[in-house]
Amino acid sequence: MTLGAPRGLGHPIRRPIATVSGAWRPGDEPGNRKFLDIPDGHAFALEGGGQLRQVCVAYETWGELSPDRSNAVLLCHALTGDSHAAGPQGNGHPTAGWWDELIGPGGVLDTERLFVVCSNVLGGCQGTTGPSSADPKDPQEGPYGSRFPVVTIRDMVRAQHRLLDHLGIDQWLSVIGGSMGGMQALEWGVLYPRRVRSLVSIASTAAASAQQIAWSAVGRMAVANDPHWRNGDYYHAAPHEGPWAGLALARQIAQIHYRSEPVLQERFGRDLVLPLGDRFDAWAKFQVESYLDYHGDKLVQRFDANTYLVLNRAMDLHDLARGRGSLEAALRRVTVPVLTMSISSDGLYPPYQQEQLRNTLAGQGTSVTHLEIDSPDGHDGFLLAFDQVGPSIAKFLAS
Amino acid sequence: MTLGAPRGLGHPIRRPIATVSGAWRPGDEPGNRKFLDIPDGHAFALEGGGQLRQVCVAYETWGELSPDRSNAVLLCHALTGDSHAAGPQGNGHPTAGWWDELIGPGGVLDTERLFVVCSNVLGGCQGTTGPSSADPKDPQEGPYGSRFPVVTIRDMVRAQHRLLDHLGIDQWLSVIGGSMGGMQALEWGVLYPRRVRSLVSIASTAAASAQQIAWSAVGRMAVANDPHWRNGDYYHAAPHEGPWAGLALARQIAQIHYRSEPVLQERFGRDLVLPLGDRFDAWAKFQVESYLDYHGDKLVQRFDANTYLVLNRAMDLHDLARGRGSLEAALRRVTVPVLTMSISSDGLYPPYQQEQLRNTLAGQGTSVTHLEIDSPDGHDGFLLAFDQVGPSIAKFLAS
Repeated sequence: MTLGAPRGLGHPIRRPIATVSGAWRPGDEPGNRKFLDIPDGHAFALEGGGQLRQVCVAYETWGELSPDRSNAVLLCHALTGDSHAAGPQGNGHPTAGWWDELIGPGGVLDTERLFVVCSNVLGGCQGTTGPSSADPKDPQEGPYGSRFPVVTIRDMVRAQHRLLDHLGIDQWLSVIGGSMGGMQALEWGVLYPRRVRSLVSIASTAAASAQQIAWSAVGRMAVANDPHWRNGDYYHAAPHEGPWAGLALARQIAQIHYRSEPVLQERFGRDLVLPLGDRFDAWAKFQVESYLDYHGDKLVQRFDANTYLVLNRAMDLHDLARGRGSLEAALRRVTVPVLTMSISSDGLYPPYQQEQLRNTLAGQGTSVTHLEIDSPDGHDGFLLAFDQVGPSIAKFLAS
Repeated sequence: MTLGAPRGLGHPIRRPIATVSGAWRPGDEPGNRKFLDIPDGHAFALEGGGQLRQVCVAYETWGELSPDRSNAVLLCHALTGDSHAAGPQGNGHPTAGWWDELIGPGGVLDTERLFVVCSNVLGGCQGTTGPSSADPKDPQEGPYGSRFPVVTIRDMVRAQHRLLDHLGIDQWLSVIGGSMGGMQALEWGVLYPRRVRSLVSIASTAAASAQQIAWSAVGRMAVANDPHWRNGDYYHAAPHEGPWAGLALARQIAQIHYRSEPVLQERFGRDLVLPLGDRFDAWAKFQVESYLDYHGDKLVQRFDANTYLVLNRAMDLHDLARGRGSLEAALRRVTVPVLTMSISSDGLYPPYQQEQLRNTLAGQGTSVTHLEIDSPDGHDGFLLAFDQVGPSIAKFLAS
């Protein structure tokens, strides 16, 4: 005899289900968001050849702009971040601030002295125009979905540049970001060198590497393989019929890199959720699987699958050298002080990438400070190692 | 306006399609396979509590068994390998031999002196009983599919042990394997210490780590998320309706580890299949994506998705210490010389795991030789770095 169905290979799989759309929509609780509407008639032309007729940029601010408008810092968020860099969860914000520990009165980003700004990126799903936004060209059709065009890191920065103008600020005191946020910080220095006074790029790169594109590809494929993705047009489906299993899988793949091997081993080892007993279950969960499930499930409650695709593609396309001759030629435009940081255990954005940035900048005479953060936390170290990230940013801003 | 559908997010995804079942079935061309049938009435009890009423073990041999039966070497294959360790592709064998370069007259595994044996593992899909085999309990139902029980590395070794008896051999001169094959080699030493005279374990581990289980989990989930998987009962579906997209994705995830970051970077960099042009395509392929597609597509033509699940689970469950008190207690049963090898660039089976094995064995007085293979090829180094793997095995066998 063979094992019965409940313990054999065909044991049913638990699938994540989002009970609400992961995307923020107009009419939802705005929380601390403010909105910049770039109206129709000022079509936003994209690097990839597309245009968006209307663009809305959702952003948040902390502290006060000084009378001479010299104290504004722009924070650029990473793949699944949003404008909510500080503040509690709730009130329309699906998570607590991603750098809450660093922002506040007397903090590393001292809101008694600084005016801190963070906007949701173009293509995002937390208030800024993205694939889940209504398409003004065809309002009856609802969200863009499959029709949403390719967005690049440069497009994100150009939307932030509109925000800079809107706020009446001449220069950011600093533009700071990690991972995809670091890509934006670097593009700020190349696209608008006279509008920034310093840059901080953490766990980022001058150009996505083959392996980074490969990891992006399998995550994007996880979403696209989900039949509920419907080629991007799933917004009319019932909430439980979205591409959540695919998005959750993409997140699970990424989450393994967001931590490192020793951290997973120390935290979970080979522990099982339930003991194996004397009849092994083909789908018995190890604790590390349960951890991945948790992170997959959590993301689908707050994020849009199409935005995941759009932003991953933007990161694949990130290449400071594109259309600029060479990396060296691009970075020659950066004349302000730069702080680069890498994380010792980061397998996704390995330290050599930041070292290459540092070396190229230093080689051309740019003032550049580099810190390797000694952390076992993997790529997410920039969101976790506050004790090292914080002081180095504080020191850099004070210098 | 936005970009037209062909270039927007909803660009159709190419899905891999297998035109034939990936599993070898009775009646297919046997090639060089021989078969050991463990008949009904000798039910094969599994470690996980299940039983298989009939087990067939497919194996191949090279060279001649010496009159004193002392020259037999068992090769244990890795996850997607099979009994075809040497010989050309074709004639019923979906690939060329996975260690063809090492096996032959005058080779590292010299078939003028050695009798080399390799069997497809229990749960496999190339002739040995696995989920694609007919269920003798219910022949009308066809293959086991969802009913196939959990198989462990120990079960694989116990099936190989039946083969050893069948061949009338008292002791293997050596049991040799890499990755999942190395797990089998180690279990041989613990389960049947008097039936082996030496062991070689390459790029393997004493127990699957949390991160290895995590990578396995996302690969298994990629298969299980595919609606064509049908909880394991897809064998009655048309060939193009199998879970090929899911299996291909699982392979793509794994393939990134089978190479290393520098190798992918040097080989593919940021090259695109077609230039971006002035209208970026959301699904334009980078060369590294095309490479992943190729490997995903290739696997679905020759492999069974359920076997992928069964063998990955067996690797998750691999733990020399299970039921034996401790790793030290388990390894104390190993008294024969052991050669361990790790690959410097292996992110999936990091060198520290083999070093732990070496240290534990050496600490108890077992003769153990360790080699770190200096290779940029990542986990697949044991299938590629013949110039280092070969001589060290030859030297070990001659010692």
